[in-house]
Amino acid sequence: MREFDIIGRIKARTGSMAGVRLGIGDDAAVLERGAFDLVALDTMVEGVHFRWGWSSAADVGWKLLARNLSDIAAMGGTSGPFLLSFALGEGVDGACVDGLVEGLEAAARAMVEARGEVGPIGGDTTRSPGPTVLSLTLFGRTGPRGPVTRRGAQAGDVVAVVGALGAAAAGLEVLQRGLEGVGRWAELVEAHRRPWAQVRAGAWLGRQEGVRAMIDVSDGFAQDLGHLLRPAGLGARVEFEALPSPAALRACAVELGAEGSRWVLAGGDDYALVVIAAAGRFEAIAAAAAGEGIELVSVGRVRSERGVEVVGAGGLQIAASLAGYEHTFEGGGEEG
Amino acid sequence: MREFDIIGRIKARTGSMAGVRLGIGDDAAVLERGAFDLVALDTMVEGVHFRWGWSSAADVGWKLLARNLSDIAAMGGTSGPFLLSFALGEGVDGACVDGLVEGLEAAARAMVEARGEVGPIGGDTTRSPGPTVLSLTLFGRTGPRGPVTRRGAQAGDVVAVVGALGAAAAGLEVLQRGLEGVGRWAELVEAHRRPWAQVRAGAWLGRQEGVRAMIDVSDGFAQDLGHLLRPAGLGARVEFEALPSPAALRACAVELGAEGSRWVLAGGDDYALVVIAAAGRFEAIAAAAAGEGIELVSVGRVRSERGVEVVGAGGLQIAASLAGYEHTFEGGGEEG
Repeated sequence: MREFDIIGRIKARTGSMAGVRLGIGDDAAVLERGAFDLVALDTMVEGVHFRWGWSSAADVGWKLLARNLSDIAAMGGTSGPFLLSFALGEGVDGACVDGLVEGLEAAARAMVEARGEVGPIGGDTTRSPGPTVLSLTLFGRTGPRGPVTRRGAQAGDVVAVVGALGAAAAGLEVLQRGLEGVGRWAELVEAHRRPWAQVRAGAWLGRQEGVRAMIDVSDGFAQDLGHLLRPAGLGARVEFEALPSPAALRACAVELGAEGSRWVLAGGDDYALVVIAAAGRFEAIAAAAAGEGIELVSVGRVRSERGVEVVGAGGLQIAASLAGYEHTFEGGGEEG
Repeated sequence: MREFDIIGRIKARTGSMAGVRLGIGDDAAVLERGAFDLVALDTMVEGVHFRWGWSSAADVGWKLLARNLSDIAAMGGTSGPFLLSFALGEGVDGACVDGLVEGLEAAARAMVEARGEVGPIGGDTTRSPGPTVLSLTLFGRTGPRGPVTRRGAQAGDVVAVVGALGAAAAGLEVLQRGLEGVGRWAELVEAHRRPWAQVRAGAWLGRQEGVRAMIDVSDGFAQDLGHLLRPAGLGARVEFEALPSPAALRACAVELGAEGSRWVLAGGDDYALVVIAAAGRFEAIAAAAAGEGIELVSVGRVRSERGVEVVGAGGLQIAASLAGYEHTFEGGGEEG
């Protein structure tokens, strides 16, 4: 398949988009000045972040967009157009490219409320003599209160979570063990294949006074919470039992004899949001969120002692066993 | 080497940048609203666009930025900050990452006049179990006349070129034949390793009345000129002898028994600019350009007959032999 055919396939499916003066087909895309002030980039490598045997092309396209939607949500922003970099490996044919694009479209339809806001405006396609490498650059815009960064946590703040933890890691293990046919774990496999970015919650939280810092869970809850606290010399105490995770996860861990707490604390790719909120504002924010259908779960408190202490279900042992966990190339992130 | 080390290496080398509120280190970068209205993306794959044996890490970094600078220049814009996607293959170590970043920096220093405008503000790094795949997303801003797109050519317009054609293709052939040690072809090899993007010329031309369309030569002159004409149902007549190419290229073609005209007409990766200008304005633009040290060479005319006819040095034969040329995945672009 030729490069122009691929570009043509993508272009044929796209229309005009808010904030975009000129999309696919020139040396660069032209944006309306002032339309976007956020930009995120996320890359997925075959064999590291996905495997064709475990995910369909549409699943991979979905996940590629979901990862980036989640980054913009974690800044308290709303998402806009994107650029694609497709370096396509040997086995990738036209149907596979169509699948990738269908997955991108399905993710936008499912997770983004405003129509015609999120779609491709340019990029580059080429052949890879090895694995398929996909990269997406997503634009977004902050709300009236500006971006919610990773900085801003203070001792005494509430640590809260939106979304479930550990489901994607559990689903990956189900796939690794060849058990994806087991119906009662379908929800976990789906969480790995088509993770849900907290698009609406992120944008809503970005508009609330008292929301001090946010991050999305891509490397694992404990590690990503650390990103919010470590630079400020802070730590947190977290109640393990308060951490939201699906009932199927616990049942699956018991049945497989797996370390379920590790999925919850160190599993990546869930794209839940970790939210740091001023203690005096938290109840009001959580109540207003509930009114919007957004479940903001308090799971712990920021404190001036460094380190993340996880209490319950093994207590300090959990924290200790996670201390050495890092997203290394050798491990390859989620599949490490 | 760990992902955080790589990000740290890149971050340590970057300072504040014009138009950027928040750079590396959060879920997304934050731009000043209205600072940029252009965005280009270009991807380079090991074994397709470069080989480690033929280019140093710094050469590859240079070329990655040059390709994107060229895209922004071809819109008549000036370049700004960029995002990186590094999927690093097996042999890539810390020194190699440093080399890539040094090459990016060297390209910015050499080709961009304004200091502190072009540098990294974010991205993603991961390991690749196969070839190294590098992608760069570059921001830019248009001048007061807006973007110069690929559309706008009219019958009778002048076809002009800024920069030399064919040198990078000749240099690649020198490398393919293992002759890079031959001193008199060093200029050609350098053109392959460290192509020169027409950064200043592009931005200057974008401000001139009568400049109707531009494209940079990445796939080869004949093909890229076709991109400017085909959608409008136009063609052009081009004088082969007028096309600018280095003297070393002709000597090299004779000595190697190679088809030098093919390098000039179909060689990619030179990043010369093809400029379409109103005939009545061309002489004035070219004279003013010369005053700025920019050499704008008239090479032919747009006409209403479709197709690109190249006259001289083989005449119509050249056009015929190029008709079937296309940037296919099988051929892999520049190395096809």
